Amino acid sequence: MKKSSKSQRSTCPIANSLDILGDRWSLIIIRDLMFREKHEYGELLNSEEGISTSVLATRLEQLQCTGIIKKSNHPNDQKKYRYHLTEKGIDLMPLMIDLVLWGTQHVPGTMAPPDILNAMKNDREGFIKMMEQKLLHEMASE
Amino acid sequence: MKKSSKSQRSTCPIANSLDILGDRWSLIIIRDLMFREKHEYGELLNSEEGISTSVLATRLEQLQCTGIIKKSNHPNDQKKYRYHLTEKGIDLMPLMIDLVLWGTQHVPGTMAPPDILNAMKNDREGFIKMMEQKLLHEMASE
Repeated sequence: MKKSSKSQRSTCPIANSLDILGDRWSLIIIRDLMFREKHEYGELLNSEEGISTSVLATRLEQLQCTGIIKKSNHPNDQKKYRYHLTEKGIDLMPLMIDLVLWGTQHVPGTMAPPDILNAMKNDREGFIKMMEQKLLHEMASE
Repeated sequence: MKKSSKSQRSTCPIANSLDILGDRWSLIIIRDLMFREKHEYGELLNSEEGISTSVLATRLEQLQCTGIIKKSNHPNDQKKYRYHLTEKGIDLMPLMIDLVLWGTQHVPGTMAPPDILNAMKNDREGFIKMMEQKLLHEMASE
């Protein structure tokens, strides 16, 4: 295991994960790439939470730097790019499921499609495996 | 289910969970209450990440407002308080475990006690149940 670098707050895996993911937007972008099949800048910009273009651009760059997403050329449009989760990003699936389950249980006014919520609750491992395979397949075909 | 309030970004449970937890410090405080048996202001202030007293005070107040922690009088010192996770806070256990597992797998320079890491990996449900019982017992005895 590498020694903690000067820029790290500590060697705690929770603190280090939060240094990458601990803000109000990064996991929203990851949600859209993971569950909503959004892969283009314009699609990511149009989510209901109303992310600003400057926040989106900054977060996409950070997520690329930390190896959570990859950017590739658009096959049909030279001016566009496509964004995908890497394996490191896909490995955030359990965490995303826990955010969904905690949110629906504890925060009033939240909603999730009942069939997806049931699959997350009643067959967590099966749901993770199914989604991982789908995302790995998408990643490989880019 | 209640309708989304004006202050909510969306009805998405991920976005709503992030509005409560999406920063670099809240989950560090929750970690200390959950895994490190820290329950007093001075103890929480002394973690290796070096939280400032103003950030700690603000976050403790926010976590109380959102019902994740509760503050009670110290039994032996009128000037002090004790902080504990509520059931809503204890329900963040799966999320914390996933942050540990993702961090140790994907962020260089992180470390976690091997016995705890093994329990989280190999008997996730058993570890959650054991920790939940411990924390509920602590909560009840305050």
